[in-house]
Amino acid sequence: MPAALARPKSAGSPVVDKLVATSRELHDKIVAGRKPSMKFPLRNLSNVRYALKKGHFEMLGKKKERTLTVSTVKTFAQTMRMIALSKQLIETDDRATKRDAYYQTKNWDEARCDEQVESDTILDDIEALFGVTKEQLCFTPDEHGGLVAGELTVIDRKAAGSTETVEIDCTNFGSGSYGIPTDVEHLGFRTKAKFILAIETGGIFDRLNRHRYWEKADCILVSMAGVPTRAVRRFIRRLADEKKIPVYVFVDCDPYGIANIYRTLKVGSGNNAHLNEFFCVPQAKFLGVTPQDIIDYDLPTHPLKDVDIKRAKDALKNDPFIRHHKEWQQVLEQMLKMGVRIEQQAFAKHGLNFVLDTYLPEKIKKGKFLP
Amino acid sequence: MPAALARPKSAGSPVVDKLVATSRELHDKIVAGRKPSMKFPLRNLSNVRYALKKGHFEMLGKKKERTLTVSTVKTFAQTMRMIALSKQLIETDDRATKRDAYYQTKNWDEARCDEQVESDTILDDIEALFGVTKEQLCFTPDEHGGLVAGELTVIDRKAAGSTETVEIDCTNFGSGSYGIPTDVEHLGFRTKAKFILAIETGGIFDRLNRHRYWEKADCILVSMAGVPTRAVRRFIRRLADEKKIPVYVFVDCDPYGIANIYRTLKVGSGNNAHLNEFFCVPQAKFLGVTPQDIIDYDLPTHPLKDVDIKRAKDALKNDPFIRHHKEWQQVLEQMLKMGVRIEQQAFAKHGLNFVLDTYLPEKIKKGKFLP
Repeated sequence: MPAALARPKSAGSPVVDKLVATSRELHDKIVAGRKPSMKFPLRNLSNVRYALKKGHFEMLGKKKERTLTVSTVKTFAQTMRMIALSKQLIETDDRATKRDAYYQTKNWDEARCDEQVESDTILDDIEALFGVTKEQLCFTPDEHGGLVAGELTVIDRKAAGSTETVEIDCTNFGSGSYGIPTDVEHLGFRTKAKFILAIETGGIFDRLNRHRYWEKADCILVSMAGVPTRAVRRFIRRLADEKKIPVYVFVDCDPYGIANIYRTLKVGSGNNAHLNEFFCVPQAKFLGVTPQDIIDYDLPTHPLKDVDIKRAKDALKNDPFIRHHKEWQQVLEQMLKMGVRIEQQAFAKHGLNFVLDTYLPEKIKKGKFLP
Repeated sequence: MPAALARPKSAGSPVVDKLVATSRELHDKIVAGRKPSMKFPLRNLSNVRYALKKGHFEMLGKKKERTLTVSTVKTFAQTMRMIALSKQLIETDDRATKRDAYYQTKNWDEARCDEQVESDTILDDIEALFGVTKEQLCFTPDEHGGLVAGELTVIDRKAAGSTETVEIDCTNFGSGSYGIPTDVEHLGFRTKAKFILAIETGGIFDRLNRHRYWEKADCILVSMAGVPTRAVRRFIRRLADEKKIPVYVFVDCDPYGIANIYRTLKVGSGNNAHLNEFFCVPQAKFLGVTPQDIIDYDLPTHPLKDVDIKRAKDALKNDPFIRHHKEWQQVLEQMLKMGVRIEQQAFAKHGLNFVLDTYLPEKIKKGKFLP
């Protein structure tokens, strides 16, 4: 875990140090009668490159400067108050959702936010300003994080601020599973699993869990339920980094599964490039479903919809990740040519357990994955 | 648990008995050269009444008859094959999603389904024909079921078909939680909790879990994440029935929170009336947020959107549940008059923990809930 990501602590938190140092600098300038200003990295595609070696989108150096003037005074005040709120959250080891943060601004008199988009923008600015994640600033998304089952013990704290730990054995949930919390930075892991299998649909996850596929295959199952949330991506990333285990991804074979779900998990999202360093899983590999599987496994297909065709063409033209990997261009072109898509559940044609008895073991044994 | 809902077993399952008896009858008629037919309850609002005492929508006796003719032969064959698939699933203690079932039909030669809507309709028919749930027929929805934290131990089987049990202690998940499986009929419960709190948003659920509100209040928290899935409704219902504990519901104060989330949890959904008996929680009570809370707690509001106004007016006019309860009509009329809605997270204005330190204890102590 990079030092910058160490969990903020009430005492001596490096994040709090950054917040205080910047605030003090601004304060001193104001007291000295000089105009204070803040420099934010530009948050759009013009300031992004695909960092091949690192495996994710990365920011270039372009910055915008916000100087305190009559027209910026409200935003300036809001930014300062939001920094203060973050400091308070870190010091009390509490968390606020973005929605909570918005409601907190209702007490800021003239600096109050009228719409949540205002407070969200300020949070994005602060995140980029300090080069840390919202989670490190103790703001959490209001979205749930996916489910886990299999050969993994998660080590968590008993409660907020507690030093007592709890151990969560993910082999011991019967037909249920472990719900990943919205903030995962403080979690510890113990596992001897051979790989992590990240799955698109709840249906396949349930089937594999129900039949304890994770026991036979010695692995950890993660249900992403569509495009993975930040918490899911970060959870898989931390687990894979710390335990040095490979990550295989099993999604529908359609442009959405490839260019949205898998791409976002592997290299991050386009419009939050300053975060991708943390919220991506560069070691992820694409297990399936592939267009070749249609032929190899005689799978029933569906015709591509217009939106699929549009999405595939768009990815071929504009997505730096797809444009970098010839294999992916070939897959999408093959898909467009065949005019069909396939779902994970299509293997049910050969029997409900074909997917776990035959398909997954064969693909993993072959070890040939898309990048 | 009513006898009809007893878990199907491989041997002597009452559901299998029903499937076999009906199939045998049809078979015998065909062999005897007579025209076989099946009678299905009509599945629409013309065949529904609001059963006040039972607390849910209920079917009247209207039925449609499907006789084997040249034009019905395909549907007839599909129905028989789906009944056979259900029998197989029950006897092998396996589960299939509706999607799985659709792909299984791909092997049915001439009886194959071209679109999933075909196989879904057959499943709905069979469910209504036998008066049992899809879950009892071993078909599960492809949707996840919500999260649980607090004073509850869930007792599950170690694996499909296993007699070995596992105990899942929902006080022991740290910042995480227990993910409810898609099928909950086989779960057992142990708890001394005073109530179940069903919560709309993940943000509030996380806050209450993080601060172990369930410990102070001696309760069980359930995150519904919007309109509760069948599994969540059934989970709460079974838990509340078996342990005889009250259910309080905490959602946004807007027409969606009231007429969609709460109404569906409490009395079921309009278009699946033959299932509401199982998938509703008649003992549920509405804790908040209420329009009166805006005044009592000085909460920041949002103006109603057009869609909110439309939904409120529609509920006042057409929803049998709202039309039955004068209190709900008053609430929706008051909301329309004030022209505002409130979110659960609005309490953050008074401090992030106001909701758990002040609001929830006060409301529960008062004990005045909307019906």
